[in-house]
Amino acid sequence: MRLLTLRTENGTKAVRQDGDTLTEIPGFADVGELLQTENWEATATAADGETHALGSADLAAVVPAPGKIICVGHNYRNHIKEMGREVPEFPTLFAKYRESLIGPNDDLAVPQESDTVDWEAELAVVIGKKGRRISEAHAADHIAGYAVLNDISMRDYQFRTVQWLQGKTWEKSTPFGPALVTKDEFTVGPLMTSAVDGEIQQQTPTGDLVFTPEFLVSYISTIITLNPGDVIATGTPGGVGHAQDPKRYLQEGQVLVTTVEGLGRLTNRVVKEA
Amino acid sequence: MRLLTLRTENGTKAVRQDGDTLTEIPGFADVGELLQTENWEATATAADGETHALGSADLAAVVPAPGKIICVGHNYRNHIKEMGREVPEFPTLFAKYRESLIGPNDDLAVPQESDTVDWEAELAVVIGKKGRRISEAHAADHIAGYAVLNDISMRDYQFRTVQWLQGKTWEKSTPFGPALVTKDEFTVGPLMTSAVDGEIQQQTPTGDLVFTPEFLVSYISTIITLNPGDVIATGTPGGVGHAQDPKRYLQEGQVLVTTVEGLGRLTNRVVKEA
Repeated sequence: MRLLTLRTENGTKAVRQDGDTLTEIPGFADVGELLQTENWEATATAADGETHALGSADLAAVVPAPGKIICVGHNYRNHIKEMGREVPEFPTLFAKYRESLIGPNDDLAVPQESDTVDWEAELAVVIGKKGRRISEAHAADHIAGYAVLNDISMRDYQFRTVQWLQGKTWEKSTPFGPALVTKDEFTVGPLMTSAVDGEIQQQTPTGDLVFTPEFLVSYISTIITLNPGDVIATGTPGGVGHAQDPKRYLQEGQVLVTTVEGLGRLTNRVVKEA
Repeated sequence: MRLLTLRTENGTKAVRQDGDTLTEIPGFADVGELLQTENWEATATAADGETHALGSADLAAVVPAPGKIICVGHNYRNHIKEMGREVPEFPTLFAKYRESLIGPNDDLAVPQESDTVDWEAELAVVIGKKGRRISEAHAADHIAGYAVLNDISMRDYQFRTVQWLQGKTWEKSTPFGPALVTKDEFTVGPLMTSAVDGEIQQQTPTGDLVFTPEFLVSYISTIITLNPGDVIATGTPGGVGHAQDPKRYLQEGQVLVTTVEGLGRLTNRVVKEA
């Protein structure tokens, strides 16, 4: 099942996608709200609210206001190598705040303060069931499904200090969607790609993750409770602009496309903030 | 004015403290909810709901569920020195998730997984008015007031990787309170102290901050919108256990007391998690 958050004249709505048709799931303003209910999957399957055409849909971030966004660094061998690091024993975790999220087709506004805005295509895991100290064997029960996220990074701010947060959480900088694809319809493995104006920058199978979604759910939930709607951004593969020679960053007018086969596509035009 | 979040049989309530009396502010479950309303200060001043005695009060974290908790590292010269670093040009920022917060007198449960649990007394700034790219000159308008926070740190997890988050955001580990003291009644400067079983560990004037609350509000809001109820934990001074020789960490049965003169006291008994 594919679940999306649609912007309408009456606010956002959680919708189910069947082919080119989006059907509202009455009572839920977004996919994050839907996930707060225990029977979200049955509710979404049975819903037959108002319908909309996918083609003209204005989509919000699939979960617009997660309780937590937990990002993972150094999780693909080819990116670890390009950043000059060793394959790690433990996952590197950092945060992003919800105000960073934008919809899958929204403009990506480069802020006045940074001209080193870089791409990081990522597979995002969305939590569907609350848990603490979840074993790796039970982790799949707590995963609602998967989506695509681009962990846009302002490299100058990221490396101003030893902690990356300030380069990772700029307002309205992180496209996330288009859909939550439930876990019965997606298995980690397919190719993830980012491209700028059609030129491929990153292309790596999601199966190359050092730490799997199940391992990450178990590891993070040792530290803190994972709640429905929480998002784990599982890290980016090689090919970021900062590691190229010469370094490349996003420029006004470019179009950034981020895809994971089977999950969908984020298409974000780069604009300069007014 | 002193505002607190009281636990009652009917859930939590935002209350105003006058001497030893707590007066409910009807309609608001906690201080964070109250701050979402534009006239929160007038509402709190005028409130005359049910009253409670401070002495027997069971207090929650003063803002139990902030939208964001932004922590600052390396912000007192004596702590920068003990950690072997240089006085920085930019503030070091990292995050903590809301599930970490506990009340000012709650037990502090040392988790099964860490035996290097350390103290970090901090002055917390609570945002009272939304803003982006707030100038330092206008920053005070966006500050509701101040509270005490102890940024309890699991040093083993903190230093497993280059990003500190996983040592900073353990479930129910961060005492925060007891009150939000509005900015008209507190000026940064007074002494902040942490003590373990009565033995002083940290004792530094909050006036020694490298980056002031106003500077931090301006710097952080350049990156992302600050919203009412957001919390900035402004960093800890010298005297953490990890920097002592030999290193010292919290042990079962100890009592950790954290104070800022004029703001109040956190008293947390260390227990071993069941």
